[in-house]
Amino acid sequence: MDIRPRDDAPPWQRVAYRVIFESDTRAGRAFDIVLLIAIVLSVLAVMLESVGRIAAEYGHFLRVVEWVFTGLFLVEYLVRLLVVRRPLAYALSLLGIVDFLAIVPALAALVLAGSHYLLAIRTLRLLRVFRIFKLGRFVGEGEFIVQALKASRFKILVFLTAVLTLVVVVGTLMYVVEGGQHGFTSIPKSIYWAVVTVTTVGYGDISPVTVLGQSLASVLMVMGYAIIAVPTGIVSAQMAIPSTLSTPPAVAYKQAVCPACQADGHHPDAKFCWRCGHTV
Amino acid sequence: MDIRPRDDAPPWQRVAYRVIFESDTRAGRAFDIVLLIAIVLSVLAVMLESVGRIAAEYGHFLRVVEWVFTGLFLVEYLVRLLVVRRPLAYALSLLGIVDFLAIVPALAALVLAGSHYLLAIRTLRLLRVFRIFKLGRFVGEGEFIVQALKASRFKILVFLTAVLTLVVVVGTLMYVVEGGQHGFTSIPKSIYWAVVTVTTVGYGDISPVTVLGQSLASVLMVMGYAIIAVPTGIVSAQMAIPSTLSTPPAVAYKQAVCPACQADGHHPDAKFCWRCGHTV
Amino acid sequence: MDIRPRDDAPPWQRVAYRVIFESDTRAGRAFDIVLLIAIVLSVLAVMLESVGRIAAEYGHFLRVVEWVFTGLFLVEYLVRLLVVRRPLAYALSLLGIVDFLAIVPALAALVLAGSHYLLAIRTLRLLRVFRIFKLGRFVGEGEFIVQALKASRFKILVFLTAVLTLVVVVGTLMYVVEGGQHGFTSIPKSIYWAVVTVTTVGYGDISPVTVLGQSLASVLMVMGYAIIAVPTGIVSAQMAIPSTLSTPPAVAYKQAVCPACQADGHHPDAKFCWRCGHTV
Amino acid sequence: MDIRPRDDAPPWQRVAYRVIFESDTRAGRAFDIVLLIAIVLSVLAVMLESVGRIAAEYGHFLRVVEWVFTGLFLVEYLVRLLVVRRPLAYALSLLGIVDFLAIVPALAALVLAGSHYLLAIRTLRLLRVFRIFKLGRFVGEGEFIVQALKASRFKILVFLTAVLTLVVVVGTLMYVVEGGQHGFTSIPKSIYWAVVTVTTVGYGDISPVTVLGQSLASVLMVMGYAIIAVPTGIVSAQMAIPSTLSTPPAVAYKQAVCPACQADGHHPDAKFCWRCGHTV
Repeated sequence: MDIRPRDDAPPWQRVAYRVIFESDTRAGRAFDIVLLIAIVLSVLAVMLESVGRIAAEYGHFLRVVEWVFTGLFLVEYLVRLLVVRRPLAYALSLLGIVDFLAIVPALAALVLAGSHYLLAIRTLRLLRVFRIFKLGRFVGEGEFIVQALKASRFKILVFLTAVLTLVVVVGTLMYVVEGGQHGFTSIPKSIYWAVVTVTTVGYGDISPVTVLGQSLASVLMVMGYAIIAVPTGIVSAQMAIPSTLSTPPAVAYKQAVCPACQADGHHPDAKFCWRCGHTV
Repeated sequence: MDIRPRDDAPPWQRVAYRVIFESDTRAGRAFDIVLLIAIVLSVLAVMLESVGRIAAEYGHFLRVVEWVFTGLFLVEYLVRLLVVRRPLAYALSLLGIVDFLAIVPALAALVLAGSHYLLAIRTLRLLRVFRIFKLGRFVGEGEFIVQALKASRFKILVFLTAVLTLVVVVGTLMYVVEGGQHGFTSIPKSIYWAVVTVTTVGYGDISPVTVLGQSLASVLMVMGYAIIAVPTGIVSAQMAIPSTLSTPPAVAYKQAVCPACQADGHHPDAKFCWRCGHTV
Repeated sequence: MDIRPRDDAPPWQRVAYRVIFESDTRAGRAFDIVLLIAIVLSVLAVMLESVGRIAAEYGHFLRVVEWVFTGLFLVEYLVRLLVVRRPLAYALSLLGIVDFLAIVPALAALVLAGSHYLLAIRTLRLLRVFRIFKLGRFVGEGEFIVQALKASRFKILVFLTAVLTLVVVVGTLMYVVEGGQHGFTSIPKSIYWAVVTVTTVGYGDISPVTVLGQSLASVLMVMGYAIIAVPTGIVSAQMAIPSTLSTPPAVAYKQAVCPACQADGHHPDAKFCWRCGHTV
Repeated sequence: MDIRPRDDAPPWQRVAYRVIFESDTRAGRAFDIVLLIAIVLSVLAVMLESVGRIAAEYGHFLRVVEWVFTGLFLVEYLVRLLVVRRPLAYALSLLGIVDFLAIVPALAALVLAGSHYLLAIRTLRLLRVFRIFKLGRFVGEGEFIVQALKASRFKILVFLTAVLTLVVVVGTLMYVVEGGQHGFTSIPKSIYWAVVTVTTVGYGDISPVTVLGQSLASVLMVMGYAIIAVPTGIVSAQMAIPSTLSTPPAVAYKQAVCPACQADGHHPDAKFCWRCGHTV
């Protein structure tokens, strides 16, 4: 839905909209960059606050920083609501919700003081950096990646279903083969192990001990190692298409120009100019 | 072998066949989706039952759920046998065996009560989700992946043989170099370690300790890291082919043959046959 | 900036420049190879010196080796300064700084004796091997890789930002879900864990213990496993382009045929038939 | 060098050569398959002998199996020497050395009885399976992979040098940052850790503990994760080329122009000009 201000909206509203929501003006780009820095700094503050030693020493300072940024984001959010044509449509859009999530945990923590969960999810505001991708060159590049993934989504879904089935089946077999005494205490836990293995992460918190288990695990590893070729192949092939598609319907034009009208691009066998009818 | 009911089969049989085995009707699609949900739910029940804490509390409920689903799958299997033209051909087909495996472990567990193994392999019924892939778009996409893998199967076989040889040779060398006191207690175990390493899984349950062992391991890691490029390259190149092949066969010849000498391959604008000089 | 000696420089200077800075003469190639060997040997000496047991036994010998190489590199550096047209421009160029870094830690350690840090960073002189890549075939190949990466740099930046955001968001969620008693003691540490997981490294020094944590980790692993397809696809597609580009450039013909002679293949803007001169 | 028997060699020698060295006859293929089975079985025997429990029980049987196979390989090797034109040229060829290595460790162990090392390297005879790749389809496929790797060898060398330098530099920095108390006891060990990390193996036997170390490690992991795109891209692009090249050469026209009307674009076999009907 179109949230741009009406053409008869007061000038300050139209100007504010362009600065805040768009990035094709100098002021718009500056706003985006300041916003990006504010987001990164406020997320850094949240991260540092979670480190015991730093919280003990600089906790007060970090909380002040946090409040300043939350205040700024709140003001920004209210201005956004003010300048758009349909505040509700904006507030319920994906980016609107992300903008809202950037302030709500901090505000909610005022009421439900000390809520561990709420404070941490303030880092979700990092999602707002995707706003920045509307800047210049990035649109095209991000779009390109998203398009390639979108075009491959059915192939990727088939692939993920196959991996999921593999992981459930092998996980179950390992639960049967290894059993609880080697860490495979339940089927879900064995499936977790199978995911850790097939993706080649390999924590080693659970690992097979019996010969049969290690053999089965080896097969799974080699499959995981080879299987990665499939999504990679899908995306590579997809990304290679645009450049391939731009390949020619071939056929070269005649090199000569029309002596009468200088038109070029004649059929290789042309006897008459396609523009003026003169012989070529 | 064709298992579709004969054309002179009773109408209910032909209708049931289309609903159960095919998905090009509204009822057929609905059946597939209900089946998919039933499969996933019943597998979830098996998984949860293996978790000690959940089994203690909800064990009775989960067993009831299990029996309901097993009953449904049994009925479904019998109906499948009834509606096909050749019940035996269906029962021995790959999908027929998968359908059968979805009910046999639960039934067998009745007789051989408490069999740990049998109960767990009930998750094998998850393989039935591949039935669903015959739904609409998925056929083409799944087919595409399978085709690319099939076309690459010899290359992949050569690749796997090379990896297998590498793993056996390096595994043996590590057994000699590191020896039993560092966990490399036998050649098979050392090969297991080599697989864990070359696939970049890296559990760390066994890891080299001596300088020579760590050097050899480093070489193996870099090889494993670089080698992954080979299957990926194979599949990528294979998947990229269709789009490349669709490129026009450049310059189309005139479709007509020479009326005098039947030569074809004339220039699109030819007035005279290139072979006999007859007008074309 | 051009650092080659002037055309009126004394012959010894021009010859020395060609030998030391270029590799298109026999002497130049020989110099590069000797330099390569000296760099590798001196780095090996630094590495061995850091091994307690070796330092105890061969420490004296290694220190002598080190001093010989440092002396050689110092002489080489001074000669480089002598033969170039603008010593300052060379000294401040990237390669000039790398050349300088190869000698400064050893010299500085004379004054700030025993400095652990300074001695170790002597291995930075390994960066000088990139000088060697100006040898023959390597220029083109290295150039090819660098070009492909350069052309993909915006796509890679978008990709890295997405990975970074994913890692921060999932890291925070894991900090909330698992908490300090399972090793997720702070958000930065949880982010470190997320990086270890999404890149499929998987040390296992920190690993999830709760069911929710392991589920979230599984999702992250599968994402990390699938996401690798994106940069790989980007670079593969980019590298495949040169061969694709060599295909001829297109040009579409006008779809209509000549009303007089039925000739087709007219220029898209044609007004006259190229065969019979009739208006089209 | 040509090792095929002379044309005037006795018939039995020429027949034996075709059976043993080639695989284009039924007997030759049968020989290869029997050899493949013998190699795999003898390697399995060596592997099982290294497992303490199995050696204790079946040690005698496995040693007998080993001697039978060694005897067979010895006979085969002598026959190979007998039938070739130049025994020395064969013995010094790569495949000749591999054939020799398949028997020498077992024989040498007779003299130097009980030699742990010699017995284990008997698995090197597995390398002989590459002889089998000369069978039918495999030649082409193996050849394809080898060609793609060969064509990419300079790019791969540049890539490996860059990875090696990265690993040495980061390894040194981690040695300085983390130090011996966290397992980074020497530069070579830190480099081993860097290899484990950059290849995404991640054993976790050594892992960073300090904040700075974990940050540096995170950067290395992301680099390793992204860097894998480079060799993959190189090989994918290389492998995609043949399929691209196989695109029709657009139809090669005859190079000559019509002597009468100078028209070009004649069919490659044209005898008459398509425009004026003159002989070309």
